[in-house]
Amino acid sequence: MNNVKKSESSAGKPETKNKHMILGAVLGNNFGSHPAAWRMPHADLGSYTNIDAIVKQARSAERGGMQFLFLPERLFLQGDLSKAPPLFNIDPIITLSAVAQATEKIGLMGTASTSFTEPYLLARQFKALDVISRGRAGWNAVPSYEPVAFANFGKVPPLRENKYERLHEVVQIVQALWGSWGYEAGRPDPNGMFADPAHIRPIDLQGKHVGARGPLPIPPSEQGQPVIMMPASSGYGLQAAGMYANVVVGMPSTIQESRAIRRALQEAAVQAGRDPEEIKFVVFAGFTVGETKRKALDARRALDDRTDIRGPLSHLGAYLGLREEIALPDAPLTAAQLASVRANPQDARSILAVKLAKAGWSPRDILAHGVFEATPTIVGTAEEAADYLQEWFEAGAADGFVTNFDDFHTGIDEFVDRVVPVLRERGLFLDGYEGKTLRDHLSLPEQYGLDPRIANESTGGAL
Amino acid sequence: MNNVKKSESSAGKPETKNKHMILGAVLGNNFGSHPAAWRMPHADLGSYTNIDAIVKQARSAERGGMQFLFLPERLFLQGDLSKAPPLFNIDPIITLSAVAQATEKIGLMGTASTSFTEPYLLARQFKALDVISRGRAGWNAVPSYEPVAFANFGKVPPLRENKYERLHEVVQIVQALWGSWGYEAGRPDPNGMFADPAHIRPIDLQGKHVGARGPLPIPPSEQGQPVIMMPASSGYGLQAAGMYANVVVGMPSTIQESRAIRRALQEAAVQAGRDPEEIKFVVFAGFTVGETKRKALDARRALDDRTDIRGPLSHLGAYLGLREEIALPDAPLTAAQLASVRANPQDARSILAVKLAKAGWSPRDILAHGVFEATPTIVGTAEEAADYLQEWFEAGAADGFVTNFDDFHTGIDEFVDRVVPVLRERGLFLDGYEGKTLRDHLSLPEQYGLDPRIANESTGGAL
Repeated sequence: MNNVKKSESSAGKPETKNKHMILGAVLGNNFGSHPAAWRMPHADLGSYTNIDAIVKQARSAERGGMQFLFLPERLFLQGDLSKAPPLFNIDPIITLSAVAQATEKIGLMGTASTSFTEPYLLARQFKALDVISRGRAGWNAVPSYEPVAFANFGKVPPLRENKYERLHEVVQIVQALWGSWGYEAGRPDPNGMFADPAHIRPIDLQGKHVGARGPLPIPPSEQGQPVIMMPASSGYGLQAAGMYANVVVGMPSTIQESRAIRRALQEAAVQAGRDPEEIKFVVFAGFTVGETKRKALDARRALDDRTDIRGPLSHLGAYLGLREEIALPDAPLTAAQLASVRANPQDARSILAVKLAKAGWSPRDILAHGVFEATPTIVGTAEEAADYLQEWFEAGAADGFVTNFDDFHTGIDEFVDRVVPVLRERGLFLDGYEGKTLRDHLSLPEQYGLDPRIANESTGGAL
Repeated sequence: MNNVKKSESSAGKPETKNKHMILGAVLGNNFGSHPAAWRMPHADLGSYTNIDAIVKQARSAERGGMQFLFLPERLFLQGDLSKAPPLFNIDPIITLSAVAQATEKIGLMGTASTSFTEPYLLARQFKALDVISRGRAGWNAVPSYEPVAFANFGKVPPLRENKYERLHEVVQIVQALWGSWGYEAGRPDPNGMFADPAHIRPIDLQGKHVGARGPLPIPPSEQGQPVIMMPASSGYGLQAAGMYANVVVGMPSTIQESRAIRRALQEAAVQAGRDPEEIKFVVFAGFTVGETKRKALDARRALDDRTDIRGPLSHLGAYLGLREEIALPDAPLTAAQLASVRANPQDARSILAVKLAKAGWSPRDILAHGVFEATPTIVGTAEEAADYLQEWFEAGAADGFVTNFDDFHTGIDEFVDRVVPVLRERGLFLDGYEGKTLRDHLSLPEQYGLDPRIANESTGGAL
């Protein structure tokens, strides 16, 4: 286990201690996060169901030394299929199991809801993935909330507190099952025991919603058990992340917001009796990188050109405070228009849009800057992308980033070939993998079984 | 689809119509079905969790043109780990997803219980495997019954009829979800729609135990949807197999028993309004093959030597009707002993054991013949193995076989290199794959979605 770095630096201030940023890549429908990515001439139209497409993307991320892939999910069909493919992978853990076979180092993080699958099966599938990938698996544990998701299980959503009651039970039982084949059971001895049954014991946990006797017949992986990721949240969700998460993923818009989330998480970890350093906070960032800013903007415009941008243009006009529809989207705003623009000081996107308008960018170019993306988006040169990541990282806004790309067919390679070398030159990103497991890659402490600090605490009566 | 053979021969008698037998390989703990396989000097001690071990076995089976791999499961820890590894794979569908990536033609059949997982997730995982393997997936759908399995889900087993009530609901919902992204939705058109939403519709099925709204956002695979396998059973289980199964797997001891099961299955199919030819019946057969019968017996004895055979010897003595313990296990029975042996005419194993004793085989060699195996076992030359398969196949006892091996590290290669060529010479087994999908390999009819004959019938009020 590559924990040396952690202990060396653990005396430093939490927000500036990391020497190297963590980089993950979110993968979705194998086309890209832009709704027109599938319409590009270079796109393989079968990518949504073509395992080769995601294997290629995974290998690109691995070539760039990225620490993990992240496959989110939705338990229902989202969006209008006449316009774009579903945004998410067909099935994260099935896909990751195949990707495990086609990669060697990169971490494999997949989402699975705590609301529907029995913990015995969740524990078995993620530990099996961890074992076949030789210690590279991670589980993004999320409670479902959407009524359309519950409808796919013949159910209606529970109250928020009940949702988290089940999450606590599921995560605790899964972790206990993961640890139920003890290290002390030993390795197979051809002249003795295959394993010592004295150290492979039932867990006998029964909650209000779920239960399991155990043990789970899977020995430790190279990293012991999978890493646990959770989404940044508040209230019950923040408390759960403080208790269980090794990694938390968030979507803040600004450095300030990101630092606040990170601080709240660290407090939640302390509340749960854990070292705040044990939680890595990673945030989403989207990229379209080009040789020049103009080329990057044109790459995004090639995508926008394949969608109906009347809606976004009208939205932008309203956002800038313009009274009339934008008639000439390719021309910079006129002096009269510029005189009337107003930014909403509470809205980072609005501030950015106004700034770009004042700098002379045309409405189409403002849109091409990705101002309406759900997460911060960088459209520009490799140096601009690296500047952005460096600023957030050095400000203690995050331990790392989950990169996202408009076009997966080209985006990851562009990032790996252009941005990663700049980050390495600046000493911000490791040159290759130092360890072998996802836990190594994230400098996480060892854990096997249910964290004894949690196991010994009252957990709100969940178990 | 390779259905030509089927229609050409469908006028013939059901029990002799097939020209070529189906061959599958059951894979378990990656060591072998003999409890001492892991102790052999050539065994990699890490095989239970080493994906490379099963990939090697899968590739051997594919090299031999076998139609499918079959991964059973148990939802609990079975057996004494001090003596042997668990008999079953760590997680069938996770393992098969990795194996999909390392193979190209062979079918991938995995067991998943209908008792615990929600149908939306079963449907999603198996269809995702089907899509990433380009139409090679199969689901062995079984209801769980063991109290120890239910304990791993914090539950107690239901009554038998309720168990099947849930199975009907789960299988019908899974199949309906599989078909919910209609073929008519079309292929992505970069100048038009990604898919036509008019043909991707909710299924809105709600049963007593489970339900789902749908649709499942996964387009058809190369074979449409996964193949469904079920175990040979009676009563409720037989009825369900008649309704849903494309393949049924059984463990009969004799040709007569096997023919009776096959006939009952065909009747159950007719009862369900299906063509009896649509159900392929495959039976287990275990093999240790050697250059000579002596070498094959010695290979098994090398395994037996690594276990305590006092128990089996004592069992054999009682089985043969001997009054005293067997003192000289390596010597043929004496004339006095032979005079007292009696076969139980109702028990095929007993008949075989007595026959072998009378032929002069020593008690250890009788055990090495595999007389106490749960399924028929052939220990001998390639010709003897082929004779056995030919006899069963030509007697209409089965459409094919699920091969099993004492030692997976050597058994599959021995079978592929020695037995398969003999079967091909005799015109009993295809030389390579004619089609691309599991449905092709099994000469199964096309099916997409819930079989309309089932969908339109009353199904005992399950849905």
